[in-house]
Amino acid sequence: MTLLLLLMVSFIATGNWAQERVWTWQCQEGRCVKQLLQRNETPQGLEACKLVCDIYSTLWPRPTGKVELGRVLVPINYNAITIIGISGEGRALSENVGQLFSTAADNFRNRLTTMFKKQEQRTSGGKSLQVQVTIHDSSTRTLTMESDESYELYISEADYSQVHCNIVSAQFFGANYGLETLSQLTTFDDAADNLVIMRDVNITDSPAFPFRALVLDTARNYFSVASIKRTIDGMAASKLNTFHWHLTDSHSFPFQSSTYPQLSQYGAYTPQQIYTPQDITSVVEYARARGVRVLPEFDAPAHVGEGWQWAGPNVTVCVNAQPWNKYCVEPPCGQLNPTNDTVYEILGGIYHDIFALFDSDMFHMGGDEVNFECWRSSLDIVNWMTSQGMGQTNDDYLQLWDMFQKKAYMKVVEANGGNEIPIVLWTSHLTAEGAIDKYLDNEIYIIQIWTTGRDAAIANLVNKGFRVIFSNYDALYFDCGFGAWVAEGNNWCSPYIGWHKVYMNNPYTLLTNLGVDVSPGTAARELVLGAEAALWTEQVDESSLDGRFWPRAAAMAERLWSNPDEGWQQAEYRMLAHRERLVQRGIQSEALEPQWCYQNEGSCPSQG
Amino acid sequence: MTLLLLLMVSFIATGNWAQERVWTWQCQEGRCVKQLLQRNETPQGLEACKLVCDIYSTLWPRPTGKVELGRVLVPINYNAITIIGISGEGRALSENVGQLFSTAADNFRNRLTTMFKKQEQRTSGGKSLQVQVTIHDSSTRTLTMESDESYELYISEADYSQVHCNIVSAQFFGANYGLETLSQLTTFDDAADNLVIMRDVNITDSPAFPFRALVLDTARNYFSVASIKRTIDGMAASKLNTFHWHLTDSHSFPFQSSTYPQLSQYGAYTPQQIYTPQDITSVVEYARARGVRVLPEFDAPAHVGEGWQWAGPNVTVCVNAQPWNKYCVEPPCGQLNPTNDTVYEILGGIYHDIFALFDSDMFHMGGDEVNFECWRSSLDIVNWMTSQGMGQTNDDYLQLWDMFQKKAYMKVVEANGGNEIPIVLWTSHLTAEGAIDKYLDNEIYIIQIWTTGRDAAIANLVNKGFRVIFSNYDALYFDCGFGAWVAEGNNWCSPYIGWHKVYMNNPYTLLTNLGVDVSPGTAARELVLGAEAALWTEQVDESSLDGRFWPRAAAMAERLWSNPDEGWQQAEYRMLAHRERLVQRGIQSEALEPQWCYQNEGSCPSQG
Repeated sequence: MTLLLLLMVSFIATGNWAQERVWTWQCQEGRCVKQLLQRNETPQGLEACKLVCDIYSTLWPRPTGKVELGRVLVPINYNAITIIGISGEGRALSENVGQLFSTAADNFRNRLTTMFKKQEQRTSGGKSLQVQVTIHDSSTRTLTMESDESYELYISEADYSQVHCNIVSAQFFGANYGLETLSQLTTFDDAADNLVIMRDVNITDSPAFPFRALVLDTARNYFSVASIKRTIDGMAASKLNTFHWHLTDSHSFPFQSSTYPQLSQYGAYTPQQIYTPQDITSVVEYARARGVRVLPEFDAPAHVGEGWQWAGPNVTVCVNAQPWNKYCVEPPCGQLNPTNDTVYEILGGIYHDIFALFDSDMFHMGGDEVNFECWRSSLDIVNWMTSQGMGQTNDDYLQLWDMFQKKAYMKVVEANGGNEIPIVLWTSHLTAEGAIDKYLDNEIYIIQIWTTGRDAAIANLVNKGFRVIFSNYDALYFDCGFGAWVAEGNNWCSPYIGWHKVYMNNPYTLLTNLGVDVSPGTAARELVLGAEAALWTEQVDESSLDGRFWPRAAAMAERLWSNPDEGWQQAEYRMLAHRERLVQRGIQSEALEPQWCYQNEGSCPSQG
Repeated sequence: MTLLLLLMVSFIATGNWAQERVWTWQCQEGRCVKQLLQRNETPQGLEACKLVCDIYSTLWPRPTGKVELGRVLVPINYNAITIIGISGEGRALSENVGQLFSTAADNFRNRLTTMFKKQEQRTSGGKSLQVQVTIHDSSTRTLTMESDESYELYISEADYSQVHCNIVSAQFFGANYGLETLSQLTTFDDAADNLVIMRDVNITDSPAFPFRALVLDTARNYFSVASIKRTIDGMAASKLNTFHWHLTDSHSFPFQSSTYPQLSQYGAYTPQQIYTPQDITSVVEYARARGVRVLPEFDAPAHVGEGWQWAGPNVTVCVNAQPWNKYCVEPPCGQLNPTNDTVYEILGGIYHDIFALFDSDMFHMGGDEVNFECWRSSLDIVNWMTSQGMGQTNDDYLQLWDMFQKKAYMKVVEANGGNEIPIVLWTSHLTAEGAIDKYLDNEIYIIQIWTTGRDAAIANLVNKGFRVIFSNYDALYFDCGFGAWVAEGNNWCSPYIGWHKVYMNNPYTLLTNLGVDVSPGTAARELVLGAEAALWTEQVDESSLDGRFWPRAAAMAERLWSNPDEGWQQAEYRMLAHRERLVQRGIQSEALEPQWCYQNEGSCPSQG
């Protein structure tokens, strides 16, 4: 009796008794329902339940083709996983793709590692897992608009000791996505204390849009290479394929040009806040192995300032001019002087250095928010225009801008070994009705839309045959909704954009609402490359980077990969699960709901 | 010639040349101005410039008494710092306060450590620093509303090898703040490669309001002990003194009660997401050594649900009732049954366990958002009321609530060793005009206001002699402004509240605008204890905790400590500096502006 009492006391004191499991989850009508664990009942953990319960499991984005899910979990042994990559002919992969594949296989293992809470859990039992990945095109390493990102995935239970998985893809990119999907069909079941995988799976999958992007501005505030790689991890987890790198701006010049190292010497915030050539290469290769292209932007002729101080007079104009709101949209102002030959010389060097480091099938030349008052404030520019017989009207300045764009583009072609290359430009005066036909060639220029999604100018662009990327600020500007820094109240594009709105931002719907026929088979539909969520970083640095992008960027990712007919409601359980997945992988995503909603599917009001 | 060329090439290749410093900062008219470094000029780093340039240096919050700053920096040696604490009589500190002081001295050293970017920098030269701290009351360890938080700080340069600092305070709390201020007068000067301190300083300082608080809700989502301690670090850095811990809610019950461990066994999200008695003690002691009281809240009779499942029928009512919006403000619903004696029995145990672990001079009983429909939905309650001759009107339910509050309060007194203790309650029907006189005693009850700051009810509370704490949601609810989770669009208290608005939220001004005379010397002024920023965590977990609180909580901290007459503009340079300080100490604060504004004081529009 005394002993029993002592035992009970020690039991309570150590908290063991209090930590004994009392809940289990059962799948009922597509929802995991929390229930009291009955005596002698084998508990099912929440994550294991979610994996088999929802119609699309916890896959994010949901696959677009065949989705056959066995809904039975098999324990697998983390230490008995074999991943083999072979070519279409059944031979070893070429060195080219073999290296990428080897990194992708390591990444798969690392993702599984994050599922364990303790090291000991990794040694638990289970079957061996054999993953065979067939990549038909064993030479392509560079993602382009023509890349094939599709894959097929099969999981069977070969025998009592093995689980077999086959992934088949045209190119590396699909194979890599197949491995991501495979890891999403795996979880650590904390009730059974086992790593488990779903068996009897057959998935075919490919994206709805070829261009699925994020843009990060590393000039208003600086972001470490580690934080950029973390962002790319989140992209790969969500099947986004383009990291658009807004390298420089008026505020700072962190890109280290080998030709003109003075640019970052003068323009970086501190000597430590620089992207060296080694840094850039490391990001590009990191992204490549995760199916992500790194698209560099060198914004000009506006959004320029810091870093050019050494280049002599009249290279840049209106730098840090006051009152700033006369000459630009935010301090500090600054634009390149299109009439100064030194500008093109230095640009040529910058472009050369960029093309030497990046491996992108397109280049972003920025071209937004050119302010004619800025140019007008320069006597040097006014005199040159007069000498050329030009006036001082806005049309004259549009011509000046056009001259800049053409000369700068020639330098880009030069840097690209004399080859033409698709150029992305932000919407601007230059892309407006009336100007765009005159100045821009739709064979070369792709237009990135940052007006609202209801702007009639969007229809005009598509009608004129321009390829477009949607970054309509009313749904895809992730910096909106915080306190203002150049005014009172909240920032210009407030309010904050929640994930529901991001998810529902369908480029086809926007165009249809503007009267453009984008039904399947139309030429207009082909012009819609995809969309890109933007993070302008006046009020964001590394501290809040993850939370601004995630999980909202994942909401856009499913829109662009799956483009579902249904609303966000059908995606909510999976979104909560994907958010937990991102956190598990070290990405500090925003929480969307109380954990209670995650544990009580269907009980929170916006669900189901 | 060839050698020179080789040298130059290697110089450029390694990037050394490109990283050579080109900028220096000079203090001009109270602003640090970025300038090109001239040949043979000794550069001044930005942080060193900021330390001597602004009228209040980079101190946050700014001191309220004498502020004499020498504006000359002296290099000090990190490895030659001595910190001695003595009593008013010049003797050793009592063991009681000595332990706290020893931790505070360690914390001071640790704060300096975060200023170095590399280990090697710590061994650089400089003078020794002797810090002598006199604490007159050498026995008080518990912060109360009567505590003296004031301190005096003197820094002189004793001789060619030593810097002397004297801190004098009535109690430990002031001494600790003096050490914080001292660390804020220290920086690592990256131009001179030295740790530096300001000499010839004389500061006297004490707070405007005695109650300066944050509340964290650890029930809607769970927060690790480490993240709670990190929050307390930020509070100590900003001279906030109360961490109000909203321990439980309908969603989860993470508090491990020793008397009723079933509560967290059933109610914690997972067995790992529990606050054990050891966890609580560790937080309370961590906070104590940083001058922070931990004020526990056990919210009742509403905001109850998970965790009580084992307690039998009719202990809680309307738990997870649907449609939820009939019975509560968000799912899951749930309230205690005031007519069930088991409720008071269990509450007694919970209160007992709370009082055994916390060391607070007040207790928070919640008392918000009681929903009469919830109680009305219980036949058990309706029958009991009928048996007592009560009706079913709202007044009857207000009486029922009053009965609950009185019975629960008796259990609190019992848990407090039979002693009365001040109780905080949120504003509610019970605190409304007409009800409050009838039901609540202003000797016992402190009312925490969470209406808007323009609510006439606030004036009523003060006029009736109740002490008040301001958490008016239009300025101090830090969860506002994000996507909704129980509706479409954004959450209920949107938009996001920027730091300007937080900073300008002056409790005295709010009361004055409501017609209450709070001029110095009035009884009404004494009733205003201070304010508290709230973080309700339906949509926040550990991933975004830091960014929601910081630096906005620091904006409130200066309002409550310094209560300046001037607007936020005068505080902006210092706010940016304090934000950097928090980041340096490992707190992931939101960025407020581009780093460019930090480096170019006066050039960003909202400044100066």
